[in-house]
Amino acid sequence: MLLQLRQNPNSHELESVLRLARELGYRVAVLGETRTLIELTGQGRPEHRSLFEDLPAVARVLESSGAPERHEKAGREQERPLRVRDAVFGCGSIALIAGPCAVEDPKLLLETARAVQAAGATLLRGGAFKPRTSPYSFQGSGEEGLGVLADVREAIGIGIATEVLDVRDVESVWKVADLLQVGSRNMHNSALLRELGRQEKPVLLKRGFAATVREFLLAAEFILAGGNEQVLLCERGIRGFDEVTRNVLDLGAMAYIQRVSHLPIVVDPSHAAGRADLVRPLARAGLAAGADGLIVEVHPAPATARCDGFQAISFAEFASVAADARAIAAMDGRKLSLPGGWRAGERARAQEPVA
Amino acid sequence: MLLQLRQNPNSHELESVLRLARELGYRVAVLGETRTLIELTGQGRPEHRSLFEDLPAVARVLESSGAPERHEKAGREQERPLRVRDAVFGCGSIALIAGPCAVEDPKLLLETARAVQAAGATLLRGGAFKPRTSPYSFQGSGEEGLGVLADVREAIGIGIATEVLDVRDVESVWKVADLLQVGSRNMHNSALLRELGRQEKPVLLKRGFAATVREFLLAAEFILAGGNEQVLLCERGIRGFDEVTRNVLDLGAMAYIQRVSHLPIVVDPSHAAGRADLVRPLARAGLAAGADGLIVEVHPAPATARCDGFQAISFAEFASVAADARAIAAMDGRKLSLPGGWRAGERARAQEPVA
Amino acid sequence: MLLQLRQNPNSHELESVLRLARELGYRVAVLGETRTLIELTGQGRPEHRSLFEDLPAVARVLESSGAPERHEKAGREQERPLRVRDAVFGCGSIALIAGPCAVEDPKLLLETARAVQAAGATLLRGGAFKPRTSPYSFQGSGEEGLGVLADVREAIGIGIATEVLDVRDVESVWKVADLLQVGSRNMHNSALLRELGRQEKPVLLKRGFAATVREFLLAAEFILAGGNEQVLLCERGIRGFDEVTRNVLDLGAMAYIQRVSHLPIVVDPSHAAGRADLVRPLARAGLAAGADGLIVEVHPAPATARCDGFQAISFAEFASVAADARAIAAMDGRKLSLPGGWRAGERARAQEPVA
Amino acid sequence: MLLQLRQNPNSHELESVLRLARELGYRVAVLGETRTLIELTGQGRPEHRSLFEDLPAVARVLESSGAPERHEKAGREQERPLRVRDAVFGCGSIALIAGPCAVEDPKLLLETARAVQAAGATLLRGGAFKPRTSPYSFQGSGEEGLGVLADVREAIGIGIATEVLDVRDVESVWKVADLLQVGSRNMHNSALLRELGRQEKPVLLKRGFAATVREFLLAAEFILAGGNEQVLLCERGIRGFDEVTRNVLDLGAMAYIQRVSHLPIVVDPSHAAGRADLVRPLARAGLAAGADGLIVEVHPAPATARCDGFQAISFAEFASVAADARAIAAMDGRKLSLPGGWRAGERARAQEPVA
Repeated sequence: MLLQLRQNPNSHELESVLRLARELGYRVAVLGETRTLIELTGQGRPEHRSLFEDLPAVARVLESSGAPERHEKAGREQERPLRVRDAVFGCGSIALIAGPCAVEDPKLLLETARAVQAAGATLLRGGAFKPRTSPYSFQGSGEEGLGVLADVREAIGIGIATEVLDVRDVESVWKVADLLQVGSRNMHNSALLRELGRQEKPVLLKRGFAATVREFLLAAEFILAGGNEQVLLCERGIRGFDEVTRNVLDLGAMAYIQRVSHLPIVVDPSHAAGRADLVRPLARAGLAAGADGLIVEVHPAPATARCDGFQAISFAEFASVAADARAIAAMDGRKLSLPGGWRAGERARAQEPVA
Repeated sequence: MLLQLRQNPNSHELESVLRLARELGYRVAVLGETRTLIELTGQGRPEHRSLFEDLPAVARVLESSGAPERHEKAGREQERPLRVRDAVFGCGSIALIAGPCAVEDPKLLLETARAVQAAGATLLRGGAFKPRTSPYSFQGSGEEGLGVLADVREAIGIGIATEVLDVRDVESVWKVADLLQVGSRNMHNSALLRELGRQEKPVLLKRGFAATVREFLLAAEFILAGGNEQVLLCERGIRGFDEVTRNVLDLGAMAYIQRVSHLPIVVDPSHAAGRADLVRPLARAGLAAGADGLIVEVHPAPATARCDGFQAISFAEFASVAADARAIAAMDGRKLSLPGGWRAGERARAQEPVA
Repeated sequence: MLLQLRQNPNSHELESVLRLARELGYRVAVLGETRTLIELTGQGRPEHRSLFEDLPAVARVLESSGAPERHEKAGREQERPLRVRDAVFGCGSIALIAGPCAVEDPKLLLETARAVQAAGATLLRGGAFKPRTSPYSFQGSGEEGLGVLADVREAIGIGIATEVLDVRDVESVWKVADLLQVGSRNMHNSALLRELGRQEKPVLLKRGFAATVREFLLAAEFILAGGNEQVLLCERGIRGFDEVTRNVLDLGAMAYIQRVSHLPIVVDPSHAAGRADLVRPLARAGLAAGADGLIVEVHPAPATARCDGFQAISFAEFASVAADARAIAAMDGRKLSLPGGWRAGERARAQEPVA
Repeated sequence: MLLQLRQNPNSHELESVLRLARELGYRVAVLGETRTLIELTGQGRPEHRSLFEDLPAVARVLESSGAPERHEKAGREQERPLRVRDAVFGCGSIALIAGPCAVEDPKLLLETARAVQAAGATLLRGGAFKPRTSPYSFQGSGEEGLGVLADVREAIGIGIATEVLDVRDVESVWKVADLLQVGSRNMHNSALLRELGRQEKPVLLKRGFAATVREFLLAAEFILAGGNEQVLLCERGIRGFDEVTRNVLDLGAMAYIQRVSHLPIVVDPSHAAGRADLVRPLARAGLAAGADGLIVEVHPAPATARCDGFQAISFAEFASVAADARAIAAMDGRKLSLPGGWRAGERARAQEPVA
């Protein structure tokens, strides 16, 4: 590890750094004439970088490869994909998650689940608890919505990805969800992250809309440090200064994360675009840049949706997105996860090129 | 209310808007040749604007003065300041909140509390539960820290402002705090906001570091809508693209909020600057722009602080900030709240001009 | 056109709007009880929207389809691609521009030009005049560099894209360039844009790194309004808050522009990424999202480049990017422009799939 | 100087750094086991930091105090204020620049000049050449406007601050202006900056609306390096993500600049706010944070202004801003520059406290 101290540290500050380094078992060298660079040698642990960063005397950690954090690729023998029922994310596999913003009517949800499954989605998204900007907006159907999700899973065997907003709901959401979602607004909610670190179930962690990459990966680290290794990241756009899209999809950050972390990452083109007509190009862009999958908002009648209707795409549009996913997977020699219940015929049709 | 619909709404979409308008008791006029403008006349309620904004057919609410939300100044007879023990915020009164980032050692906290009180702070800040970016950083001393805060309040009669991170901790924090703080990372945590809406205790709501003004005011609305009218807002800087400061203090937003909302608002120069040497100029700027108070990080030995040490100022520096507050209050004919226990002599000295 | 006035306009302000509307030949209707909406009917001209936006009484133009600006798709009969020698941009054609940041050594430039041409680039990029952040950085080789570019064009028949920074250099750059580039830092330089509006030569206009989409399109409008219709837009990333990439590639904005404007648009993954290892994924993303081409920095020995060496890719990496471009074009049924001088064999090899 | 190299530099890359260091006369030490830190000892020159930053092998310059750039405070014996006729900026002096966005009618300009001078402004602002977002907006009255400015100066002896947009106009603007303004959109226009570096006249350099502090200071360095030492910086707000204000006034950056640079800096509350009702609080904030002056848009009838009318304040409002400036200057023991032509009575009145 290599630390840069703030300018002109006094002996007290310098000592605070040296003391911690020795406590953690590092050999220490103070470099340079100004004595503001500290080189630590030895075997570090995931906790160490943060401990040094927290010292007021440390301006920044210039290099930390000796003490990789749990999300880091460095030092891991082999990467494994994340499996959530039929869906496989990472290591050459792509999977599609699709469904409405919120659980509304049971019939509509079942219809939607059937449609997205028929197009190739292996997981159904849909919120029973919805994080909303206004207290007066529809906040989701709660426990009742969870029941509806459970019924759909029972009916057609599709896995469920749904959001948990409140630590007190983790248990009830856990019973229904195959993939527990942490939304963008809750990426910094450490109480919730810590609770999910104690579960034995995959977590879909969305990037905060103004989170740096490091903050995003440290949010994942909260879950990993708790013992839950099943984390699926999601890039869903960051806040920009323009209004033509709701957010700015940050594919550079996604590609960077794929270089430094072993965690799989999917792209959410719906929240990035915030408008249905731009979902497909952003979905294509995400997959072409290397995303391990997509999560897309689909609604049978977007104009009547109780939330995010303007950005939901129709069944037909989702079929096009799924066809793009097959084409891009084929181009790259990657494998698109297919629903387990697919008959041979569907499977065959799905492999055909689509206009 | 005046609504703009999205371009070329079909009859179904148009009808969804008209139906809701009639349900809520408005007289409706469809304006213009393209029929994309809807004028609603009648007495509205705080909930209505959000209900219309949620309709997919509505592009935006152009004007909503007929249905003011609870945070709005419009339609209120008279504004009242917010009182938290000796501190009075708003309506010509300013108050200072000061203390360390986190509760650490009991002696140090008492020493700090005495120092900031002597300088003129009426509330002590200090976190027992700390929201941190890394799971490996010091997360606060928890329940033990709450006990330390309670002891200091008992000892010198200073009010306590402390953060609550987890809905499950609201009760225990409630017992100790005079002002329950929601941090920037939790501004979007609707479960927590809703819980605080049920309390009868003042809430300090910090702006999310990438929240729009409307999102900030709607976060306050979650608390107000729950029945708790004691909300103190805090502008603490937004995320920028430069690294010379930790955040960018958005005084334009603060001044705007003072024009549209009846809620008092304080400024946090410490998190905005992220470095001790810029805290004083930003504190001065905030008060000169009209802030109803300050919340400042102060530590007896910043170099040893367990969190945010680089941005904490010393006792002497805080005394200068407090002197600035007196001078600016005097310049504006505003009143700086003073600690109740101050002796006459202190009070006299505090009124003197300071170099 | 549909205008929203600022709240409570006085009669004087209202009259300023009505007067301009009548002068420009519109029929006018004042809508709504608050009289803050103005509907204008009649045939408008490209200038009109801006004229109304400039009136202090006008809060915003809600709808302007009756007076499309020159960059808009609305009202145009048919779109045509932009041809620059062998390169064709738009209407189903893709082309690649590649080369070094700056013109350095004549031999290296020729070597680079040959390599990128062999891989499929139809235009060579390379700056003789370089916009730099520091006055002490290499500012380009100037007139001498232009001569080197001219020699390379003469030698291998590749078209030249090069930047013009100063209005006084337009004439000399004009003589050498097939495509006159306006860099991101100069997108707001109206003197330069106006000068280029008077030229009969294609212009590559890069988006300012913090320009809104509307500002970007109005920068193009400066050129179009001057009579030069050959404008090629370029999305090259916007300034973000993170440092893992130099900029954030805004493909949502690009896709939006393709829906509203008839101007072709390319993507610059090099300046977006700011690091060689992320250029290829962003290039793929751009093309998959629908970009009409790419502009990429390529250098024979990036480690020795006199500017932007860290983001330049090698010849081999560019060959992979070009292979991606062929594959994505094939997937979409689009046509990749190929260098005119290509022998049949090269052409055949270039069409083969690449690992 | 202390350099951090990029990870795993090859011997070629390392050598490029060592060679430059030796050429520039530094003693060189390679620090640490990974050999990615280079310490340079010796007397450096302003050019050196940029030269090292441009090397692809250099990740960043960690410390450069041995080679201060021309804008830096470090190594300068004594700071001097910048004088522009009656205005004195810096070193305890404050001055006010005020006037309309653009030169329009001669009578109105004279009226405005008299009003702002009477309130205490020592320089008149007003653009003859206007940088506009749209080619269809009023672009200023050009040479004719310069003549009007010259007449006003002649008539009442007020100094003139006016913008130059085009290198070809420098000479004609030079004849009229006492302070040559570079607008925010042109901060990156190095051709213009270099031209102004050759003039013997003060330059007002506005920060680009998305420029980092370092980019801003290096833009000033272009002028300083050319030999013109009379540079006045201006913080005028950066682009944010919210629309309640036009920009976000970055007073943290301003206060930081005052710590690291000897250049005086003023604040432009008008462009920061973008709305008249927030100009005064931001002006107060800027001065309280330590700004060396203000530049404010004032118009006799904002509703009829041909540009930026919505953000211009009235004569009466400017009088309040000027009164604030006197009060804050008095509070700080600073001196507000007063117009030379002021009669004793005016001077006396201006010193009185104002409600």
